[in-house]
Amino acid sequence: MELSVKKFDLEAGKRYTVIINEKDMLEERIHSGDRVTVSGPQDTITAFVNSTKKVIKKGEIGLFQEVSDKTGLKDTEKASVEYSPPPASVHAIRKKMKGEKLDREQIFQIVFDVVEQNLSEAEIAAFLVSQQTVGMGIDEVEYLTRAMADYGEKAEYEKTTFTKHSVGGVPGDSKVSLINVPIVAAGGIFIPKTSSRAITSPSGTSDTMEVLAEVDFSIEEINNIAKKCNAALVWGGSLNMAPADDLLIRVERPLKLDPLSQMLASIMSKQLANDVDFMLLDIPVGSGAKVETESEARKIASTFRELADRLGIFLRSVITYGGQPVGHAIGPSLEAIEALDTLSNKGPASVTEKSVALSGVMFEMGGLAASGQGSAMASKLLTSGKALEKFLQIVELQGGNPKVKRSDIPLGDKTFDILAKNNGYITNVSNDMICKIAHLAGAPKDKGAGIYLHRKVGYYAKQGEPLFTIYSESEKKLDDALNHALKNQPISIEGMIIEEL
Amino acid sequence: MELSVKKFDLEAGKRYTVIINEKDMLEERIHSGDRVTVSGPQDTITAFVNSTKKVIKKGEIGLFQEVSDKTGLKDTEKASVEYSPPPASVHAIRKKMKGEKLDREQIFQIVFDVVEQNLSEAEIAAFLVSQQTVGMGIDEVEYLTRAMADYGEKAEYEKTTFTKHSVGGVPGDSKVSLINVPIVAAGGIFIPKTSSRAITSPSGTSDTMEVLAEVDFSIEEINNIAKKCNAALVWGGSLNMAPADDLLIRVERPLKLDPLSQMLASIMSKQLANDVDFMLLDIPVGSGAKVETESEARKIASTFRELADRLGIFLRSVITYGGQPVGHAIGPSLEAIEALDTLSNKGPASVTEKSVALSGVMFEMGGLAASGQGSAMASKLLTSGKALEKFLQIVELQGGNPKVKRSDIPLGDKTFDILAKNNGYITNVSNDMICKIAHLAGAPKDKGAGIYLHRKVGYYAKQGEPLFTIYSESEKKLDDALNHALKNQPISIEGMIIEEL
Repeated sequence: MELSVKKFDLEAGKRYTVIINEKDMLEERIHSGDRVTVSGPQDTITAFVNSTKKVIKKGEIGLFQEVSDKTGLKDTEKASVEYSPPPASVHAIRKKMKGEKLDREQIFQIVFDVVEQNLSEAEIAAFLVSQQTVGMGIDEVEYLTRAMADYGEKAEYEKTTFTKHSVGGVPGDSKVSLINVPIVAAGGIFIPKTSSRAITSPSGTSDTMEVLAEVDFSIEEINNIAKKCNAALVWGGSLNMAPADDLLIRVERPLKLDPLSQMLASIMSKQLANDVDFMLLDIPVGSGAKVETESEARKIASTFRELADRLGIFLRSVITYGGQPVGHAIGPSLEAIEALDTLSNKGPASVTEKSVALSGVMFEMGGLAASGQGSAMASKLLTSGKALEKFLQIVELQGGNPKVKRSDIPLGDKTFDILAKNNGYITNVSNDMICKIAHLAGAPKDKGAGIYLHRKVGYYAKQGEPLFTIYSESEKKLDDALNHALKNQPISIEGMIIEEL
Repeated sequence: MELSVKKFDLEAGKRYTVIINEKDMLEERIHSGDRVTVSGPQDTITAFVNSTKKVIKKGEIGLFQEVSDKTGLKDTEKASVEYSPPPASVHAIRKKMKGEKLDREQIFQIVFDVVEQNLSEAEIAAFLVSQQTVGMGIDEVEYLTRAMADYGEKAEYEKTTFTKHSVGGVPGDSKVSLINVPIVAAGGIFIPKTSSRAITSPSGTSDTMEVLAEVDFSIEEINNIAKKCNAALVWGGSLNMAPADDLLIRVERPLKLDPLSQMLASIMSKQLANDVDFMLLDIPVGSGAKVETESEARKIASTFRELADRLGIFLRSVITYGGQPVGHAIGPSLEAIEALDTLSNKGPASVTEKSVALSGVMFEMGGLAASGQGSAMASKLLTSGKALEKFLQIVELQGGNPKVKRSDIPLGDKTFDILAKNNGYITNVSNDMICKIAHLAGAPKDKGAGIYLHRKVGYYAKQGEPLFTIYSESEKKLDDALNHALKNQPISIEGMIIEEL
């Protein structure tokens, strides 16, 4: 059909959209969500249709900026509009819904259409839900990972490249990279590490690092930083590496969908795009962590290894204790301080031990230490101050202050101490509740917000002693966090009444 | 956060949407597709967020018409915007994805949120895909059906109400209701029948009826028509009965999703809303029909009956032959002519027999004929001319010409005869190909477009005799249809070479 153009001075996003009057749609048997081709003097594009009763009259078509720019159609010009069937990738998604296996070409086509925004959110959801309910084989996961890495930017490093990745879910874990990365870099490992910002957890490694330095760099800038100091601690979010991931996560998040196949592809495609050769996967296990049992962790580790082998990445996994927060500090600034303390050999034993252990495994993986000798090497680099020196070098190269002291880092000035109600040993610190309270207090958005745990599992607490302190930058958020903390019991003491019936 | 309003003079549809700059979203850890509450002087609403780089600057929020109307927010005013978690129905959808059963309240909540457009397309897709891959029990289907009927308009008739419904998929089937409905109405059955327009098939009952009369009425008007003549043949699409159905179909269609549970709920919720007491379900079986085997049809019939029993609807099913088109005419005007011919006792035997048989079962279901006597009663009403009289009464009450003759109905004037290449018996008439060719010729959009089959399965064809005629209203569409017809072989003749290798 021929429709008269009405331009809107508004971008609708990369997913082309046009608006047609519902009477034209009824006549043409086109429905909201269908695709049409729109032809103009410059180009023909495929767009999704929305219907309207008003605004666009019968005989008109509403074009958003991207569509008028691309087609060259101007106000009141005639656009030729025809129904267009769904692309081949939709057929592939239907196949997956029926439980069939997809081949390499089909999966590459799906990922291409995700990146080019040729698929509707409903179509992407169908792909993700069937990954969850039907599942995918290792062949399919490999294609998915490769496709996600291929359709996006890629780094290329001259040196053999290492990384460490935690599957996550444990509060306080974000700081470990700030200690582990400088230890291994000081020991000769090349580790231009990209990491994420937190979504629901109190801090991501990028959030914590951002307290001390910039984290938003281009691929070239990262390469230059890493060339000078063997390491980088940057945000991966703006690099356009494996851009399909963000587009898929946008659909996964509201549904809390996280199919294993997609988790594998998400993590590994970013390593593939970042030219990683050696990778240590940290799987924290415990109640409230992403992985709750050791047998589940072993299964995940073996699937990751099979996939990494296929991708030419040398991967080893470690299971770490994830039943309570890592260290005492939770939230960007509190964790940055604890990382500095640990690098200065004044940190909590749990953080020191985890960082040293992970670094030791990496030295052994890379052949820099003999089997069983890695931890000793890592420990020496930490106690000698070389790791701290390396960290401050990274901070400086990333635009931060290399003379930074713990006292330079501001914390939220609204605080509240939660006290022990009775004497006893701590039997549980709930990851979930600590996350929730830190989140209500303002973390990770407010850098100075978070929680400091004075007592953890196995400590003895006396009645009236502070169990933890909540930090916040606003009275209102402190109140919200406090209310939640008082209503729930994030820290359990032996002998305490859990619930009155 | 507080954002300054920028209004757009544009409706985005009932699903509230706001636009925020990506910098604000990053800071607030809000992502595209998340929900936010937007508070203004008048009201607080929940909207989906889209991000933008341009158009909306940092500190601004773009509001579409519906959102500014509802909240009362005006240009440059400050809107209070906060992250809002997904509604409870999203938790229920997640439960379904994990394979769990949903209870009545959860399903009603999902349907409510579908109708109120509180769910994203991705969330709706997740619900539909898990119906397909995980499945639903009969309890869940019952809740779904009731919920879909409850959230919408309902008819209420004084008389016991009948209907006949075909699960569809066979070209030429749309005309059967134009014969069956007046037969049973003439025999004393009250049948205010709503039907659909075709999407991919060459004609829906509403499309065919629309050749002869109006079909778009309100619930009250339908009641008035049916009061006068015991029947109506109207379009159900604009009645807002079970409105969730259209919103779900919008997501199902591009994915060609059609889970059995949703098909049951879709069909039965409309009957429930239309106050139906007795229902005859026609299940055409054959290659290219919606149901391809008799055992599948029996399973479907028993599930429909179980559901109808729970809903208090007396339902019986018949399996009919669906291996080739019904009658000779395919397309709105051609089928309207064939219906008039059949009502005038000049129609093809296959159409007459099917219409009489269905009517007979309905008379027996309603106790208007003794067991085994229904067909005779129906046949008498047809041969006596009473059914034609009743039909013309319906046509008149629906604003059509009660003196209409077959010659009054215009057909597409661009025609082409496809001839038999050799002598032999017809062994197959492909439903799929006939559909496709009629569709290319312009049906159902162009009323005069379609196909007339001169030969069907079992007929003998001589070389050079016309097998079928394509009708079209445009040369271009005729060419498209013709090309498809010549490339494929919608009609097979015994002894013919099917494919040259």
